[in-house]
This record gives sequence, structure tokens and C-alpha cells, in this order.
Amino acid sequence: MFNKKFSKKLLPVAIMSTFIFGSTAGSFGNEAAAKPDTSKSEIKNVIFLIGDGMGTSYTSAYRYLKDDPSTPYTENSAFDEHLIGMQETYSWDEEESITDSAAAATSMAAGIKTYNNAIAVDMEKNEVKTALELAKEKGKSTGLVATSQVNHATPASFGSHDESRHNYNDIADDYFDEKVNGEHKIDVILGGGTSYFDREDRDLTEEFQQDGYSYVDTREELLNDDNEQILGLFAPKGMDKMIDRTEESPSLKEMTSTALDRLSKNQDGFFLMVEGSQIDWAGHDNDVVAAMSDMQDFEEAYQEAIEFAKKDKHTLVITTADHSTGGMAMGRDGEYKWDPEPIKAAKRTPDFMAAEIADGADVEETLSSYIELELKQEEIQSVKDAADEGNTTEIDNAIEHIFDVRSGTGWTTGGHTGEDVIVYGYGPQSDQFAGLHDNHEIGQKVMAVLEGKRAILKK
Amino acid sequence: MFNKKFSKKLLPVAIMSTFIFGSTAGSFGNEAAAKPDTSKSEIKNVIFLIGDGMGTSYTSAYRYLKDDPSTPYTENSAFDEHLIGMQETYSWDEEESITDSAAAATSMAAGIKTYNNAIAVDMEKNEVKTALELAKEKGKSTGLVATSQVNHATPASFGSHDESRHNYNDIADDYFDEKVNGEHKIDVILGGGTSYFDREDRDLTEEFQQDGYSYVDTREELLNDDNEQILGLFAPKGMDKMIDRTEESPSLKEMTSTALDRLSKNQDGFFLMVEGSQIDWAGHDNDVVAAMSDMQDFEEAYQEAIEFAKKDKHTLVITTADHSTGGMAMGRDGEYKWDPEPIKAAKRTPDFMAAEIADGADVEETLSSYIELELKQEEIQSVKDAADEGNTTEIDNAIEHIFDVRSGTGWTTGGHTGEDVIVYGYGPQSDQFAGLHDNHEIGQKVMAVLEGKRAILKK
Repeated sequence: MFNKKFSKKLLPVAIMSTFIFGSTAGSFGNEAAAKPDTSKSEIKNVIFLIGDGMGTSYTSAYRYLKDDPSTPYTENSAFDEHLIGMQETYSWDEEESITDSAAAATSMAAGIKTYNNAIAVDMEKNEVKTALELAKEKGKSTGLVATSQVNHATPASFGSHDESRHNYNDIADDYFDEKVNGEHKIDVILGGGTSYFDREDRDLTEEFQQDGYSYVDTREELLNDDNEQILGLFAPKGMDKMIDRTEESPSLKEMTSTALDRLSKNQDGFFLMVEGSQIDWAGHDNDVVAAMSDMQDFEEAYQEAIEFAKKDKHTLVITTADHSTGGMAMGRDGEYKWDPEPIKAAKRTPDFMAAEIADGADVEETLSSYIELELKQEEIQSVKDAADEGNTTEIDNAIEHIFDVRSGTGWTTGGHTGEDVIVYGYGPQSDQFAGLHDNHEIGQKVMAVLEGKRAILKK
Repeated sequence: MFNKKFSKKLLPVAIMSTFIFGSTAGSFGNEAAAKPDTSKSEIKNVIFLIGDGMGTSYTSAYRYLKDDPSTPYTENSAFDEHLIGMQETYSWDEEESITDSAAAATSMAAGIKTYNNAIAVDMEKNEVKTALELAKEKGKSTGLVATSQVNHATPASFGSHDESRHNYNDIADDYFDEKVNGEHKIDVILGGGTSYFDREDRDLTEEFQQDGYSYVDTREELLNDDNEQILGLFAPKGMDKMIDRTEESPSLKEMTSTALDRLSKNQDGFFLMVEGSQIDWAGHDNDVVAAMSDMQDFEEAYQEAIEFAKKDKHTLVITTADHSTGGMAMGRDGEYKWDPEPIKAAKRTPDFMAAEIADGADVEETLSSYIELELKQEEIQSVKDAADEGNTTEIDNAIEHIFDVRSGTGWTTGGHTGEDVIVYGYGPQSDQFAGLHDNHEIGQKVMAVLEGKRAILKK
């Protein structure tokens, strides 16, 4: 339970009594936390899940949001059970010590530190081999799944090389042009990004199809296809937040599931990177509604990966973030209350509502359509005032402010923040990811696993 | 390295090359992160260290502050090596879901959830047995060490019982009056608080001495005393921040060390709680200089505990926070930079400087005496403007703002925040504290350890 009127009268008496001990010294009770897996089983498959921007305030807030308020203690999120460590995120950028997603992803993908904006290149802009490329060298299948454009910084750092993350077209080209042992190196590519793949100067969707890939751009097509190689693009750039999506768009869970179906056909195993990209985008926008929406999208994909790994027994699942975003805090303005209920009352993101209002929709009607709360007159007025100025961003900010104040969510920046992020691990040898690591060390260990070895870290 | 101009030319070539793998599959390299100790050795002693308010942004920022900028990667803080898990901190308060220090400490001390303000009492205000009391029942020696008044919420929840943390005199009385098996239950009591122990209506310092305790109120007296039972009070209420302290005041390390000397004479072992209290007070003040000062104070005490445990081999050291404070973030205002150098340039806290200025000291002279930075004219002017209003708090805020902006530190609240905090563990059976726990579960496990058993958790 969290943040509700706690009535102990509703609880059975036993809960109020104290706990009991194991009956004999050294006996082992029902322990709450899972341990990292120390088994030395062979790892065939690696699933690397990255919640972009998913700092500790996001994972904590999400647990409380999903908690059943009728029980006295919180229920764990799907992530919680496999918490094994944390990760440092700083980059080697000459100007910026707080990492961007490109440098952090390059560290996790290739085991090195680099500058912000770098896509799998080192400080001297030399290309560095990535875990995905190594997996392909080893004869494994590979996949990249994201809710951003799939050529955005995080997936790009696994599947391409560029001195700048902003060279989106070049990165998309790399996905097709860069080969390992003469073969395309990414078998499953799912996310947003039609505007970068189907361009005036080049139509990569066509080229991929000529080489035997399926190309799909709706959820239905995706779910009806069973080709082992596939390019699926479901938005011009980034995909919508989970709660804003239409039936046309697959969820991150569906993309992950369909990727696993395809990749697992390879007897030599696979490497799959899945990014919950929109958590970060929500953080940049200081939008707690969107952040929690896409934490759920990411959690469901994570559960899909864990379920696969549980059955398979030779799959390592590493889940972490590249950095935190927004300086989000569960607490603001001296209040000792963080309340998820207002966030749960939102049926669309503030961005979605702001766009409708900017398009001429009535403020009060829009808010009451999409927010299951009795709003105060001054809250509605704050959005009307923003709408009068005709600026979508201001409307968005005004709506976000309602949720921030009501939930008790604070923010310090529209950018990233530098504190450590959590590492979750499941599967054989996950114990070697326990404790604190630097992000490039996580990359080194993932690559060592793909080599069938353990890394000798250079720190 | 963090946040300096990174010049790869200064680095040996080997560092720029990629990492190497262990030479054979399954070989074990030099792994970076320590593992929780799975040995089943008997635990004689428990040292429970609590960094009040020490959220993940504090522990991360502190590492970067202490980092050697001439090396390419960060050096670990003393804490980092023993990172094993995290802890949920919510309370069962009917109004406030974000915990205060009393409820959180009661959870960790007694293994139950309770309301904010509760000092080792449950939701119905019934007294609950604490780990310290259990240790005393088992014939162990016990100690409480803090840099707040030693009858403040956190230590109080281990050594007394009260329906409200604000009943400071009653809590101090409890330390003397409440007995276990007819004996005083706390052998070593060190911190601030003379105003509560030496009062008009009662002089507990005298009463303790009559019962064989030493009473000391300076660092020198403390270090020259070797009585096994001691009350040491070094300030009327809370002690100064580490960088503001005079020679008269012991450090948290010295208090911890002298407590260990005394407690370890008991062949049946001991329980010691050490609180870095002022980390939280700095967080409430949104003062990053003070926060980092007292992170160092706490780290040095922690190192003392770890050194003891390393030699002793039968000592469990659990280190965590009760909650985070201030919504502190390494990042503000869209800047991708968190810079510890300005913080390191401060030789006193903003509070200390503000007090001198409010007492009539010249603004420019005061700032230049205590801040080893070339301040900009507008920064100095901002403090002068605050000084013209004659309000110490405004002067303090103006000085803090200089450090916040220069370091890139953001804040969201003057209160606490609700996200999870880190758990560090060292010593036998520390593995049972690995992963995610609720704070009352940590308390249950500590008490089970003192029983020589493992807890069967009720969650």
C-alpha cells in the first residue's frame, strides 16, 4: 500500500503482530529478494533491455503506481525481483560530463567510454565493434526494438557507427549497408522511423525487401508476418506513448514478443536489444503521466523477455537505463506525499490533450474527456490561459503542472541527470553483473558472455 | 575521471584499446564488483550505519566529488564496493506517504511499518522491541552514535519509545530510564544534545555518571576516556557539519572508532547504530556543500566500521539510508554538466558564511575567505542584496544558489522524497540483504541475525 488512507482496521490482526523467525539457527525462510543467478550454464541468448532515462525515481514511482492499495505492503514491480546492482553513466565528453544516450549506449554496446553524440565510435571517431556485431559474427541472430525511431541513439549504437547521432539517414543506411561476414547484421528491426528509411534519395524499405526481409508498418501486418528477417516501422519518427497509441501501433511487448519468436529459431542463439525509448522522452518533457505510461510499456516487454528466459534457461536478460532524465523526484515543495492516483486518472498524455486543444478543441471538454478527476476551476483556467496564447508547449506545460502538483512530482531539468541507475539481471551468470559497474563494464561483460567467456575488466 | 576536460593524449595507449577477454571459456577475470558474502559464519556483532537522507544522487555525486580527475575512469567510493541492493522507504502514515526519519528508523530498528513521527511504536502506539533492545537481551553491548542530537528521530527509534519524535526530553529520559534485564540498555551514547540531557528539571548527565558512565563533552575528553559505558554530547542540539567543526568536536569517524573500541570488549558481541545525520539536514536546506561535507564524514565512519569487520570476521555491516532528501539531482536547467569543483572550493558551509555575514561580516571578504573561487560580480551582489535585507536564511539561500548553479545541482523540495535508497552490505550472511527489500524487512533481518537465525519475512 502507498499513499492511501491507511486503515489498520481493515487488516487482519496477524499483520499487525510482529514477524517470526526461522525455527532453528541457520534455517532459511521465505526470502523476499531473488539472488543473482550464479549458475554457470551456457548462455546462448542475450536480451539487453534499456529503459532510456529510467532512473531510480522512475522505477520506484512505477512500483507505487502499480501497487494494490488494498494490501498493507507494496507489491513488487516485475523489475524489482531481479534487482542486482547499479551502473555509473558518465561519459568522456570534453564539454558535458552528464552522458547523452549515444555515449551511454556505445558504452553498453561496445564496452568503451566515448563522447556525447558518438554512435559506436571511440574518442577518435574510430568505429568499435558492438555486442550485436559480435553476436552476428558468432552466427547468432540479432534484433533491435525501440519505441523511438529505430535509428535513434540507443539502438543506433548497437547497429551502426557514426560520429554523430544526428546523422539519422546515414545510420539507417548503415543498418542495410554494414555487413558482417557478407550478411546483413540486424535480422529484426522494429520501431519508428519511416521518414528515415523511405526517403526521396533512397528507399531502404524496398532494399530490405529485395534482400528477403519482410517490411511492415502496422501492428496487424507485424503480427501476421512470420519471416525471420523483418523491418517494421510504425511511425514517421518516434512512436506514440503507450496510452496515446492506436490499434495500428504495436506495443513494445508485441514487438519484443514477435522479435523473440523470430530470433529464437536460430539454433546458435541470438542477441536482442529492446529499448523503452519514450520513458526518456517523457522525462525531457517533465511529463510524469507519459513517463509512467511508458514504464508500463517497458515493464510488459521486460516480462516477455523474462518469460522467454525462464523457459529457455540459456538466456541472459540484462535490464538497465542509460541515465536518468529530468531530475524527476517523488516529492516537491516540502510536501511529504507522492500520490499516483492523479496519474492513473489520465487516459492520454498532456501532449495528446495539448495537441487537440491547440487544434481548436474546447479546453474543459478535452480535459474532462481524458482526465478522470474533478479538476479545480483554477486548474482548468491555467490551461485556458495557456490556450489563449495559442502555444501548444504552454498548454502541455499547464496540463503537466496539474499532474505534478497533484501527484507531488518534482523536476530539475529538461535534460539528463548524472546519478547511477539500476541494473536488473536474470539468467545464467547474471551474478557477474551484480554490484556497481561502470556502463562500459556492462558492455564488456555482455560481449564476454557472447564470446562464451568472462571479461577481465579494464577499469 | 568526471567532468574535466578529458584529454586522451594524456592517457597511455592501452587505455584507448579495447578490453580483453579471459583466455578460456568460463575463466574468471578480475571482476570489478564485490559480491554479497554468502558465508554462513556466525555473526557476533552488527553495525548498522544510516546515512540520513542519503539517496542515490548523494552517493553518486559524492563518488564524482572524490574522484581523481587525472585518471580516465572514476574511483569507487568506499561504499561502492559493497553495493548489494536497495530499500523501499514508504511509511504507513495516514496523511503522508513519504516517510519521515522516525517511521523509517522504526522500520529498520524494529521490523514493522508505522506512522510518521513514531519512535519505536506501532500504528496503535504500542511499544515494539528494537534491534538494540534485542541485542541487549542477548547480553551484547550496544551503542548509538549520531551527528544530530543523539535523541533525534533515527537513534531514538533504536533506543527509546515515544508516540512522537518531538518529545525530545522524554526520549532522552528513556535512554536512562528504560532498562533491559535491569540494566541500562545503551552502553555508548555519542552525538549532540546537551540541551536535552542537562535540563532544569533533570540532569541525565549526572544520573548516567552516578551509574558508572563517563560523561564527556569535548573531543579530547572523548579520546582520553576508556570507560566501557559513556555518554558524550558535543553540541546543544545537532553537531556542526564536518567542514564547520572546531577541534572541540569529534568527527563521526572518531565517535564510531571510540564506540567500537568500547563495545568490542564484550565477548558476547555488540550492536552499534551510527547515523550520518547531517546529510539529511543539508538536504532539507538544499545545500550541496554541506551534503558533500557530511557524506565524507559518513564515509569515514563507514570505513572505520568496515575495517573493524574485516579484522573481526564475525561482524555484519549494513549501511543504507532512511529516505532521500531535497529531490537533489545531478543536473539542472537543461545543462549536461555536473561539476564538483565549485563544491570542493568551499571551506565552510553557506550556513556558516551566512551567519558571519548576518553578524556583520563583510560579504565580499567572507565569501573570499571561505570560497576558493573567483566569484562573479553578480554572484557577490546576490549575496549583498540578501544581506541588505538582514535575513540569514536569504543570505544562506543566495550562497547556496551560487554552488547549485555552478555545480549543476537541482532540488525539488525542502522535504523528503519517496524513491528507493541503496543498501550496502559487508560481512557474513550479508547476501540475505541483497536485492530489493522493504525497510521493515531490513529491520526483520537484522533482528533475525541477532537471534542467530534467518527471518521468515512477512510481506
